[in-house]
Amino acid sequence: MPNSQFLTPDSKLLIVSTSKIYGSSYMEYLLDEVKNFFDGAEEILFIPYARPGGVSFDEYTEAPRKAFAQIGVSVKGIHEFENPAEAVANAKGIFTGGGNTFLLLKTLYENRLIEPLREAVKSGTPYMGSSAGSNITGLTIGTSNDMPIVYPPSFDALQLVPFNINPHYLDPIPDSKHQGETRETRINEFHFQNEQAVIGLREGSWLRLENSKLELSGDLTARLFEKGKDAREVEPGDVSFLLNS
Amino acid sequence: MPNSQFLTPDSKLLIVSTSKIYGSSYMEYLLDEVKNFFDGAEEILFIPYARPGGVSFDEYTEAPRKAFAQIGVSVKGIHEFENPAEAVANAKGIFTGGGNTFLLLKTLYENRLIEPLREAVKSGTPYMGSSAGSNITGLTIGTSNDMPIVYPPSFDALQLVPFNINPHYLDPIPDSKHQGETRETRINEFHFQNEQAVIGLREGSWLRLENSKLELSGDLTARLFEKGKDAREVEPGDVSFLLNS
Repeated sequence: MPNSQFLTPDSKLLIVSTSKIYGSSYMEYLLDEVKNFFDGAEEILFIPYARPGGVSFDEYTEAPRKAFAQIGVSVKGIHEFENPAEAVANAKGIFTGGGNTFLLLKTLYENRLIEPLREAVKSGTPYMGSSAGSNITGLTIGTSNDMPIVYPPSFDALQLVPFNINPHYLDPIPDSKHQGETRETRINEFHFQNEQAVIGLREGSWLRLENSKLELSGDLTARLFEKGKDAREVEPGDVSFLLNS
Repeated sequence: MPNSQFLTPDSKLLIVSTSKIYGSSYMEYLLDEVKNFFDGAEEILFIPYARPGGVSFDEYTEAPRKAFAQIGVSVKGIHEFENPAEAVANAKGIFTGGGNTFLLLKTLYENRLIEPLREAVKSGTPYMGSSAGSNITGLTIGTSNDMPIVYPPSFDALQLVPFNINPHYLDPIPDSKHQGETRETRINEFHFQNEQAVIGLREGSWLRLENSKLELSGDLTARLFEKGKDAREVEPGDVSFLLNS
């Protein structure tokens, strides 16, 4: 697999498994890291296109608005701008929230935002994604857990990193009687059809890229799947080797 | 929604949630029904295209071959024929097994089998599907649980029935700390983007269509999702109303 053509030494990414962990409020567990990551930005651009059913973009934007307010950063939704590509180009920081990955990617294609987002990341605009917003930083959305509720024009994602993400990574449930595939089985099946490595990020884990260094953070290990190899656990710390995968 | 244009009074369908329930062997719980459904057929055609990773079509075909042998029916895999469309047209019965729904649908399109399968069902060839093989009897694969490991040219499925299937339907797990969406949440999100009803078939349930009558069987209720209505349980028995949805 090629290294990413969309990363420069200026690129900054925060790839988060989930915006919310059990027993804590939206982004609460992550606020210190987010503050540090967007250091200096007074306002960030929120992309709500993965919006879960039944809420407006405005309503969905309220959750990050409240969270970022605690660290002194204001939030503007991309739907508040007339020209979304221009909004991306001018943003001091970008956060794409979770929801449905298929809906998110389809809307990014429809609004012609794939290239502007790549350009923003190349030029050093910090990009944070959680869940679906993380999934799209990988090569494809082929390791999404979501239901395919809409048909995007391609599964190719932003391809900022040269591997795939599996957010909300879930270990097999002991003694389950359910006959559906485990997450590990699904990712192994992905590797019968695809080449790239897949990093399973458990809830509470995130990847941060800065100064060309990729770091795994949070209290948990991540699960790394490489084609033709046994899956293995990766400890928090420097995981820059993934950039050369 | 229109009624299905691909059903005739001769059409026979067996739409099974799973080929295997907990604690019992492949198709064991279902053999009496299968024997009755394919009544008279000496040989059926097996479609292994959803094949789970790591096994050949031949290896995958062994499972149904052994199961059908117990009821005196022989099984031939579609991959054993030079012309798959001809194999479908000539089949006395068809069974599509489970695995990955995206891979199954993509392969059906590649092998130009969508129309031949519709024609076979129109003309009265009994069609049985389990899991992925059931999913494709619906309008789209938009309510699949599978990982999107390949990109099919469309999510439009065989559209034999005028609704969508969710096989392996799973109730929310009590006290789960996982932040991923429940199945019910996912299907509700589907309904913010789609119109058709979705029937969640729990493992051990199946639908059978014969003489224009649709029946839900197995010991369990099924969960019916209709846009703009609360989800509700449907008892085993006549569910022909779904054909007019």
